[in-house]
Amino acid sequence: MTISPAWIAVDWGTSNLRVWAMSDSGSVLAEATSDEGMGTLDQAGFAPALDRLCADWDAAPVIACGMVGSRQGWAEAPYTAVPCTPLSGGFATTHSSRLSVNIIPGLKQASPADVMRGEETQIAGFLAQNPRWDGVICLPGTHTKWVHISADEVVSFQTCMTGDMFAALTGHTVLRHSCGDGWDDDGFATGLDDGISRPERLAARMFTLRAEGLLNGLPQAQARARLSGLLIGAELAATKPYWLGQQVAVIGAGALSHLYVTALSTQGVAATQVNAERATLTGLTAAYRLWKETA
Amino acid sequence: MTISPAWIAVDWGTSNLRVWAMSDSGSVLAEATSDEGMGTLDQAGFAPALDRLCADWDAAPVIACGMVGSRQGWAEAPYTAVPCTPLSGGFATTHSSRLSVNIIPGLKQASPADVMRGEETQIAGFLAQNPRWDGVICLPGTHTKWVHISADEVVSFQTCMTGDMFAALTGHTVLRHSCGDGWDDDGFATGLDDGISRPERLAARMFTLRAEGLLNGLPQAQARARLSGLLIGAELAATKPYWLGQQVAVIGAGALSHLYVTALSTQGVAATQVNAERATLTGLTAAYRLWKETA
Repeated sequence: MTISPAWIAVDWGTSNLRVWAMSDSGSVLAEATSDEGMGTLDQAGFAPALDRLCADWDAAPVIACGMVGSRQGWAEAPYTAVPCTPLSGGFATTHSSRLSVNIIPGLKQASPADVMRGEETQIAGFLAQNPRWDGVICLPGTHTKWVHISADEVVSFQTCMTGDMFAALTGHTVLRHSCGDGWDDDGFATGLDDGISRPERLAARMFTLRAEGLLNGLPQAQARARLSGLLIGAELAATKPYWLGQQVAVIGAGALSHLYVTALSTQGVAATQVNAERATLTGLTAAYRLWKETA
Repeated sequence: MTISPAWIAVDWGTSNLRVWAMSDSGSVLAEATSDEGMGTLDQAGFAPALDRLCADWDAAPVIACGMVGSRQGWAEAPYTAVPCTPLSGGFATTHSSRLSVNIIPGLKQASPADVMRGEETQIAGFLAQNPRWDGVICLPGTHTKWVHISADEVVSFQTCMTGDMFAALTGHTVLRHSCGDGWDDDGFATGLDDGISRPERLAARMFTLRAEGLLNGLPQAQARARLSGLLIGAELAATKPYWLGQQVAVIGAGALSHLYVTALSTQGVAATQVNAERATLTGLTAAYRLWKETA
């Protein structure tokens, strides 16, 4: 049976390409995933990668979000400046041999300089599910975003490259000898407490993990969890003006998001955890409706 | 003419091996360097590497410092616990086919856990040149050491892995796209001021460099210098109990040491800059005299 979507939803990040065949009302008819993320493609590679993944579906308009709209992506969708609603920018358009494609622009902030691409769509999805919601949205990832929402607008946001740092520290510094696989909840709690209460000691505390491994045989799983706690603790210290006394939603269901919810709970913040895929699809659906209105 | 040293001084770190043919009074008769650091050698490789580099010299007792005495080195010289004088531990001994080798042990601190290897010899050299000197010694490097000296003893010390972090951040995170070659003094000053006055914002400030590159075309040399300033500023915040109101000596003559002197001067600390090679050789000479007394 051939699938005839009303439109095709696309989430195209640095590492992965995900597509969904959608009904007009926003139900999923079929889906597919590939590892042909932006990072693996050159300019000419985007169109065939999308056509391949949607080959079994009838042609339909495409609504896409993510790094596909960056300068190194398929077609640049210039950033929209905050404060604004998350989907207020115009689509960038392009096409493959079969499909016409509309790309959602990311958001930018002038000072402190900051950018996002893809998260604006998840934010739009969350707000579509939670009308008139004011507070702070945290989107954990390689580059975690903290986003202040008021009156359906993104007022300001702050990116912390904690995940990127963690990977570089455990992979490419002396800590690669100290931080092995595995996990230790107490280690995370210890690091977190240290990171949030004395963030100014971060540079000094990290080498302690190495020295405790050499002198006291600190287990590698515990060192890894303590480093993660230290960095997320320092991030919470950096973003305190965002989450303190606010209603907080964490978009993401995986282990990393759970760490942020745990960390926030130690500060008396009961964050709501939100399904990321559902937020993305709801956001893409909201964008599709905007596109239909103007098409 | 064959060189007949009274002893041979050896500084054997992770990346390099340096040897000096020495007179009994501590003058340099000849020297040689190779890139056969500990990191490139397995257990069986140390003896031939040393013999090769000293092949033109008559055999003589060797006094060595550095990572050669670590568990992964040639012969483990167990750490001496502070507080202690920098050369109070016994030598680890080993030999090649031609040479008998005495390795200076590193220092350890129980809490906060910390270790050093090689720096203790530079400290001993500095103290031999500056008797009854009290204050704080800073030894910049991949793992910068801050060392509190009183009554000729190492009282405590603190390692910050700032250099290691800088290399990992500029080489293995998104900042590799933002931080190019070159340097910008104003950028360093801006980052330093930010890092020292608001160290808790480090995690947030780093991504700002990426975003300013994307949005405002921040030059790569300026981003690199600002990141360096941010990290050294955060390190000064972490080590404030060490340097505040203290007499400070920075051992090292290169560009990195100069950055630390500049950074300290912004905090009203006029640090003395000390030649690192001279400190190493004076320290190895002090160790040679201790060895002769007990041999």
